[in-house]
Amino acid sequence: MIFPEQVTIRDVTLRDGLQNESVFVETEQKIEKVKEIIAAGFKRIEVTSFVHPKWVPTMQDADELGQRLPIILGVEYEALVPNKRGLDRFLQSNFHSAVLFLSASTAHNQANVNKSTEESLEEVTELIAITNKEGRKTVGAISTAFVCPFSGEVPYEEVEKVAEALVNSGVNELGLGDTIGKATPRQIYEYSSRILEKFPDVPLSLHLHDTYGYGLANVMAGIQAGVRLFDVAQAGLGGCPYAPGSPGNIQASKVVQLLEKQNINTGLDIDQILKLDIEFPKLLGSSKVLTKTV
Amino acid sequence: MIFPEQVTIRDVTLRDGLQNESVFVETEQKIEKVKEIIAAGFKRIEVTSFVHPKWVPTMQDADELGQRLPIILGVEYEALVPNKRGLDRFLQSNFHSAVLFLSASTAHNQANVNKSTEESLEEVTELIAITNKEGRKTVGAISTAFVCPFSGEVPYEEVEKVAEALVNSGVNELGLGDTIGKATPRQIYEYSSRILEKFPDVPLSLHLHDTYGYGLANVMAGIQAGVRLFDVAQAGLGGCPYAPGSPGNIQASKVVQLLEKQNINTGLDIDQILKLDIEFPKLLGSSKVLTKTV
Repeated sequence: MIFPEQVTIRDVTLRDGLQNESVFVETEQKIEKVKEIIAAGFKRIEVTSFVHPKWVPTMQDADELGQRLPIILGVEYEALVPNKRGLDRFLQSNFHSAVLFLSASTAHNQANVNKSTEESLEEVTELIAITNKEGRKTVGAISTAFVCPFSGEVPYEEVEKVAEALVNSGVNELGLGDTIGKATPRQIYEYSSRILEKFPDVPLSLHLHDTYGYGLANVMAGIQAGVRLFDVAQAGLGGCPYAPGSPGNIQASKVVQLLEKQNINTGLDIDQILKLDIEFPKLLGSSKVLTKTV
Repeated sequence: MIFPEQVTIRDVTLRDGLQNESVFVETEQKIEKVKEIIAAGFKRIEVTSFVHPKWVPTMQDADELGQRLPIILGVEYEALVPNKRGLDRFLQSNFHSAVLFLSASTAHNQANVNKSTEESLEEVTELIAITNKEGRKTVGAISTAFVCPFSGEVPYEEVEKVAEALVNSGVNELGLGDTIGKATPRQIYEYSSRILEKFPDVPLSLHLHDTYGYGLANVMAGIQAGVRLFDVAQAGLGGCPYAPGSPGNIQASKVVQLLEKQNINTGLDIDQILKLDIEFPKLLGSSKVLTKTV
């Protein structure tokens, strides 16, 4: 087994952790939390999504966040960009990186954005080209890169096809998402190894969910494959809103403890993170419940 | 990473799963459960301990179990043997294998049996020699082989010293126990690799607890090191009696699903195991609460 000296952890709490919640966390409080996340040592933070507020009302303050986040040397803010309209908004913000996303599985992509993977790929590669031209960084995030909730295991070839188109369009970084937490360590290892072998010059991240308790085993498998960047959420937020209490994204404190105990340096402050384990759920509990706007 | 074709899973529910419970499961019901465990495909079953019934009243029926278990070709029953008196009882039973145990950490060994590791080692190696001479199989189980609740991380050298003495006394199999669930994948991998390298002719098992959620990651790390035999308990029984609901031994259903999904064959029937996930806790709920006899 390989135990690298260092691994980077990206915080996605404010985006994937809050996205499907039924409460709206006030902008002011999101900014406070970003500061606390930075105080814990995180340098890469996925903050929001430029999706239409009608569809994802928890992300309705993306434009305001894009103006008001504290500019700190070495801290990189990222935001999801779902389409051309979102990109226009993104380009008027101060976010460093645009996360352009689509699903490797057409069944999931269709359910998510009402397009085939092929159609989304065409749009996403165009958005990547524009974003790069405007001097911003692009992250190509491939959802359901392992298992699709509708069609089951996603063949590696489909994932590579999407990754290849993203790389050809000039994407600066790739991400593979185990969207529903059903990938096994073996799948994580095999898919990640092959992507890294095929595109050795493009950094690769893993976005893992802990739905079935495979989160930590999958982190270790990703490391074995050569992945050095992992997404986490504070308090493991981001579980399915229809299954309260179900684990969501892999939990920051658990991942950091696992790595640091193995002398894999994350540069993060576990005590600060343990505080966020308590404070984030409290914040959700005290936030305003959203009224359906759609 | 390595994904072997086959791994063996040993059931320890009736011993480590029940040992610290505050209820006594009737002998008749234990035998019923053994039959169900066999029906699920398990071929190695750790059933009880020949400890003095005053100390561990849940195991008070070891002698009776040793006479009444169904003899089935290919099924191997094991029992813990703590001392010479226990060995005498064991040798009058029909159990196939005696599990002789001690802690690599002297602090834990002292707390457990009121002897230093050195003193226990002398006794255990004698017991191994007698047991082998009597034609029964011996398993040398090293507790706190990674982390001790009192003295913290256990140096590898101490574990190897114990293992070496056990091997020299003719033990047929070695086991390393992560008694409190605090070992990391890195420690599991490194200690197991080194033990297997040092004693390549002695089969090695891992006894893992899921107390901190490292169970599945540690199974994968053990496999990478070359371990092909793992202990599990149905329903993850064996948690600390002072922390109800805390995970105990790694859970049979979780381990089997993890392995089978990765095409690592266990020879087990997951549907039967999922039934035991439900039935074991029910059985505990309906069993007689023990009155302290010590």
